[in-house]
Amino acid sequence: MRTEHKAMMKKRKENICLQVAYDGTAYHGFQRQKNCLAIQNVLEEVLSDALGETIEIAGASRTDAGVHARCQVVNFFTDTSIPVERLPKALNKKLPPDIVITAAKIVDREFSALHSTVRKTYKYKVYNNVVPNPFLRSYSWHYPYHLDFAKMQAAMSVLVGKHDFTSFKSSGGAEMRSSVRTITCAQCERCSDDIFLFTISGDGFLYRMVRNIVGTVVTVGNNRMSLERLREVLLAKDRRLAGKTAPAQGLILWDVQY
Amino acid sequence: MRTEHKAMMKKRKENICLQVAYDGTAYHGFQRQKNCLAIQNVLEEVLSDALGETIEIAGASRTDAGVHARCQVVNFFTDTSIPVERLPKALNKKLPPDIVITAAKIVDREFSALHSTVRKTYKYKVYNNVVPNPFLRSYSWHYPYHLDFAKMQAAMSVLVGKHDFTSFKSSGGAEMRSSVRTITCAQCERCSDDIFLFTISGDGFLYRMVRNIVGTVVTVGNNRMSLERLREVLLAKDRRLAGKTAPAQGLILWDVQY
Repeated sequence: MRTEHKAMMKKRKENICLQVAYDGTAYHGFQRQKNCLAIQNVLEEVLSDALGETIEIAGASRTDAGVHARCQVVNFFTDTSIPVERLPKALNKKLPPDIVITAAKIVDREFSALHSTVRKTYKYKVYNNVVPNPFLRSYSWHYPYHLDFAKMQAAMSVLVGKHDFTSFKSSGGAEMRSSVRTITCAQCERCSDDIFLFTISGDGFLYRMVRNIVGTVVTVGNNRMSLERLREVLLAKDRRLAGKTAPAQGLILWDVQY
Repeated sequence: MRTEHKAMMKKRKENICLQVAYDGTAYHGFQRQKNCLAIQNVLEEVLSDALGETIEIAGASRTDAGVHARCQVVNFFTDTSIPVERLPKALNKKLPPDIVITAAKIVDREFSALHSTVRKTYKYKVYNNVVPNPFLRSYSWHYPYHLDFAKMQAAMSVLVGKHDFTSFKSSGGAEMRSSVRTITCAQCERCSDDIFLFTISGDGFLYRMVRNIVGTVVTVGNNRMSLERLREVLLAKDRRLAGKTAPAQGLILWDVQY
């Protein structure tokens, strides 16, 4: 990917950075796919069509199928003459209503939406009520069992810091040299009687790490895992010991900092 | 309909009242349709299947295609032996995830979800930002132009009281003997920088009355109609003088009181 970036830079085109919001319900994740529709397919097709040249984008986060984004960041190189400030409106006219360009700017040629990230923030919503909510069905995990708020707050704080997060990494993602990541913020808020909102920020995330963390913290909240045990699970570097993966639709890529 | 209700009463069955929440995006409104899918079709089919008898329901509000409900109320007569407190869970298992039974109880045989209403409350959301929001596309009116909050608050208060609302009645609904309705609450809140929430309660509503009121109040908020003129439009009893009908997806049936 770094080689691709350098190859694109050589062409002396402008490097454009877009902020993108999307409802991931209808898509097979962010990353380009051959036989099903991903956000990247749609963005590249619309960009190529609007700019009259073949556009390839790089994105800050490869969100899974069903995962949403308030602020995904992508960049691409182009020699278009369309002023950058006109791009969002021009592109949004051609994009489906569940994908929206919220901002566009010209950035340094060295900037890569994927490699230049300093901090990413995800939020995860749990709807904790016996009765389903039709408006939250695509934007939360409907968990109808007991949850202890104080225990979930304590569990989140256990994860803050620099750790090897192997216990929270699903198999199947891209190969990473290291499983050590630094979590700078991990908290659980109670937004209403039946809505818990998890916020996690860090310098990087392993494959399905946020969903594996939420699944495990909910296990703690349901009194099926102690805080002591959670600390042991983190240190054990063994995925089999942590809780199950929380469903995709509760997760949203909230912010990316560079 | 009153005759139907009496005919059903004669059979000495139980009268069951359900509260229903639904995301109306995928449906052609509440009222049963022959060649397309309405909420009523789905509810009657699932109820008939679950209770083993042909069930016909009456609903408090005939919401339009794309309009949502936090609390629609329906009733029906049945001789099922399923305890009423088990009905929501049993029915929700068979219903699609965008329609949810939130409560069930046995009511007086005289109770009609349609005819016994004392007060209905609707809310309407306007998303007031130049940039579209993919998460609000099915739950708000995306209005990207200037809106004056104070003027909209004043416009809503003009409508409170007992008036002939002919100017805010679309043609095409069921024939009503009178167009006089009493609005007990009409207000506009600013929920955030770019979200306005309208709340309207009253003893009854004419066809598309809430959407016609919101469309007109937004015209006032955009400085294309004065408060003076709004008062004249209300008194004129002429639909052609009011603003256009606000889109369906911003509207939600919020509460029904009996």
